[in-house]
Amino acid sequence: MATILTLAGDGIGPEIMTQAIDVLKAVNDKFSLDLTLESGLIGGVAIDATGEPLPDETLARARAADAVLLGAVGGPKWDAIERSKRPERGLLKIRGELGLFANLRVAKLYPQLANASSIKPEIISGLDLLIVRELTGGIYFGEPRGIRTLENGEQQGYNTMVYSTSEIQRIGKVAFELAKTRAQAAGTAAKVCSVDKANVLEVTELWKQTMIEMQQADYSAVALSHMYADNACMQLIKDPKQFDVMVTGNMFGDILSDEAAMLTGSIGMLPSASLDESGKGMYEPCHGSAPDIAGQDKANPLATILSVAMMLRYTFKQEEAAQAIEQAVSDVLDDGLRTLDILDSSEAGLKQVGCKEMGQAVLAKL
Amino acid sequence: MATILTLAGDGIGPEIMTQAIDVLKAVNDKFSLDLTLESGLIGGVAIDATGEPLPDETLARARAADAVLLGAVGGPKWDAIERSKRPERGLLKIRGELGLFANLRVAKLYPQLANASSIKPEIISGLDLLIVRELTGGIYFGEPRGIRTLENGEQQGYNTMVYSTSEIQRIGKVAFELAKTRAQAAGTAAKVCSVDKANVLEVTELWKQTMIEMQQADYSAVALSHMYADNACMQLIKDPKQFDVMVTGNMFGDILSDEAAMLTGSIGMLPSASLDESGKGMYEPCHGSAPDIAGQDKANPLATILSVAMMLRYTFKQEEAAQAIEQAVSDVLDDGLRTLDILDSSEAGLKQVGCKEMGQAVLAKL
Ligand SMILES: CC(C)[C@H](C(=O)O)[C@@H](O)C(=O)O
Ligand SMILES: CC(C)[C@H](C(=O)O)[C@@H](O)C(=O)O
Repeated sequence: MATILTLAGDGIGPEIMTQAIDVLKAVNDKFSLDLTLESGLIGGVAIDATGEPLPDETLARARAADAVLLGAVGGPKWDAIERSKRPERGLLKIRGELGLFANLRVAKLYPQLANASSIKPEIISGLDLLIVRELTGGIYFGEPRGIRTLENGEQQGYNTMVYSTSEIQRIGKVAFELAKTRAQAAGTAAKVCSVDKANVLEVTELWKQTMIEMQQADYSAVALSHMYADNACMQLIKDPKQFDVMVTGNMFGDILSDEAAMLTGSIGMLPSASLDESGKGMYEPCHGSAPDIAGQDKANPLATILSVAMMLRYTFKQEEAAQAIEQAVSDVLDDGLRTLDILDSSEAGLKQVGCKEMGQAVLAKL
Repeated sequence: MATILTLAGDGIGPEIMTQAIDVLKAVNDKFSLDLTLESGLIGGVAIDATGEPLPDETLARARAADAVLLGAVGGPKWDAIERSKRPERGLLKIRGELGLFANLRVAKLYPQLANASSIKPEIISGLDLLIVRELTGGIYFGEPRGIRTLENGEQQGYNTMVYSTSEIQRIGKVAFELAKTRAQAAGTAAKVCSVDKANVLEVTELWKQTMIEMQQADYSAVALSHMYADNACMQLIKDPKQFDVMVTGNMFGDILSDEAAMLTGSIGMLPSASLDESGKGMYEPCHGSAPDIAGQDKANPLATILSVAMMLRYTFKQEEAAQAIEQAVSDVLDDGLRTLDILDSSEAGLKQVGCKEMGQAVLAKL
C-alpha cells in the first residue's frame, strides 16, 4: 500500500485536482494499485487557514507520503502579504524540504493540437524534448539574500546564485541517464545539451566544467553539447527539434522550460515531475493557478491528469497504468474535445468543453 | 568635429565593420557631418596583440571618442584562456568603464523578411518592440563572485545579483522616456512592461517596487505592467505585439532581447545601442562573432550598418542621415538582395549575395 498526498492549492487548483483524483481512483481500481489518497493544504488556502503557505502538518504528511500531487498556488489575493508568507514560498519550501532537486518537464507536441502553436508547423511537428531543471539550488535558494539599506540611505536588493560540484553532478546524472533511456526507447543516439552562461558567470563555469568531466568519466556514449542561455532561448524558437534532453540550473530552467512549453502552444497539456534522490516525487502541471478563470469550469485538467500518469511511471513504476491514462487523453483529443485554451476556432469538428466534462471524458475512456 | 572609435573585434567583425565604415564615410560626406574615424583593438585580436581583451589604450581612446562602433568579440581560439582575460571580458569591461548602463535593442520585423521567422506571420507582422536592458549592473557585475573550494574539498561557484534603487531608477527613466517618445511618434498610448522574478528574488522585488513608485511619481501617463521573466519568455512567443517597451535587468535582458530578436527571424538585421547618462554610446549588432563563417564573405553587414544609423540618431542627433541609411537598407531588401542568413529559398526573385556585395549595394543607394 502506498499513500499519495494531494494538494489542490489555489485558483483553478481545486477544479483540476477533482478531475485528476477521479482519474487516479479509476486506474487505482482498474490496475489494483492499492493507492490511498489524502489531501492537504498549501499556498493561499493554507495561509487563509493557518497563516502559513506550507503548514507543518502538510510538510509532515508530504514527507510520510510516497508521492505528492499538486494543483497550483498563488493569486492576487495574497500578493500584498509579507514576502516570507506568500503562496509561492510554500511551493519553494516543499521543493527544498523534500529535496526534490530534479524537475522534469517534457515539451511534447500533441499532433491533434499542432495548430494551437504560434510556431510554424514544420518547425515543431513531432517535437518531444525534455528539460531537466535543477530545482533546489541556484539563485532560488542561495544565501545571502534580501533587501538592505545602504549607507547613503538608498536600498539595495541582492540574491546569490550558487552551485557546488556535488549538486551539479546530482542533476547531471539525472540528465545523462534519462538521455540514455530516451535514446534507447527511440532507437536514436543519446544527447544532452547543458545550458549555462559560462562566458559571464563563474557559477555556471563550474557547471559546464563539471558536466564535461562527468561525460568524460561516465557517459562517453552520450553526446554532450553546451549552449549559452541567451542562445538556447533563440535556438528553441529557431529549431527546437535539434534538442533532446536539456539540463540547466534553477533560474535558466524556469525560463527555458516555460518557453519550451509555449512552443507546443498548449501549456495546459504539460505535466512535470520533481524527484528526490530515491525517485520519490511531487507531480504538478506546468501551468499556474490562473486566478482569472478560477471557479468557472474553464480550466484544462489534462496537464494534472497527465501528471498522474507521470507519477505512476516514475514513482510507482506502473508503466501500463501510465500509458492507459496517456492513451485516454489522446482519445478525447481525437474525439475533438477541447477546453478553451486549446480550442482552435478555425478548425471544424471540435467541441468546446469545460474542466469537468473534459475530466469525465477521460474517465469514460479508461 | 566629433570622433568615432571603431572596434572590429573577432570572427566576422572585420568584414561587417569594413562595410559599415564605407557607409559611415558616405553619409559623413553627404550630410557634411564632420566625423573623424579611428580604429582600435578589442576582444581576441586585442589578446593576441597585447595580452588583454581591452587594452588601456583602447579604453582611453573610447573615453575620448564621442561614440564607439563595435563589431563582435570572441571565438573558440580564446576559449581556453584564463577567465579574466577572455574576449567577452573586454566587452563587459568597456560597458562598465564607460558607464553604458542603458542597452536598447529593437526587435522589428522587416516586411520583406516576414517569411524568415519560425513564427506564424499573423503573430509577428508589424512587430516593433524595444527592449531596454540594464547593462552595467545585476549579476553580470555583482560581487562577491568566483569559484572556491569548500571545507569538504568540493568546489562551489557563486555570483551575486544586486541592484540599488538608483540603478533601477536610472534605467527605469530611460524606459519611461522612450515609451513616451515612441507613443508620440506612433500616435498610441505609452506603455512599459517591467520584467522581474519578484515572486522568488528579493533583488527584483526592489526592482518592481521602484518601477511602481517611479510611475506613480513621474510617469502617470505611461501604463506600467509587470511580468515574471518565465511568463515574459512565453508571452513573447504567444503574442509579442502585446508589448511596446520592455525594461529589465542585465541577465533577463540578455535572454529576452535575444529571444525577441529571433522572433523576427533575422538577428542579422538588428542593431543595438548602449548609452551612458549623457547619451554617449557604443553601437553594435545584436548578433555575435559567428566564427564558423568568419572570413568567408558570408556575413550579413546590415545589423552593423543599422547600428551606424542608431549612432547618428542617438548620439549625433542626425535624424536625416539615420533615416537615409535605414531607407537604403530597406531599398536593397526590396531589390531582393539577401545574405545567406536571411535567404528564403522558397521565395522567387531573390539574389544571394556576400557581405561585401550587400554593403556596397547599400552604399550605392545612398
Ligand atoms: C511559482 C514560481 C515560484 C515557480 C518557479 O519559479 O519555480 C514557477 O514559475 C515554476 O516554474 O514552477
Ligand atoms: C558576449 C556576452 C558577454 C554578451 C552578454 O551576455 O551581454 C552578449 O550575449 C550580449 O548580449 O551582448
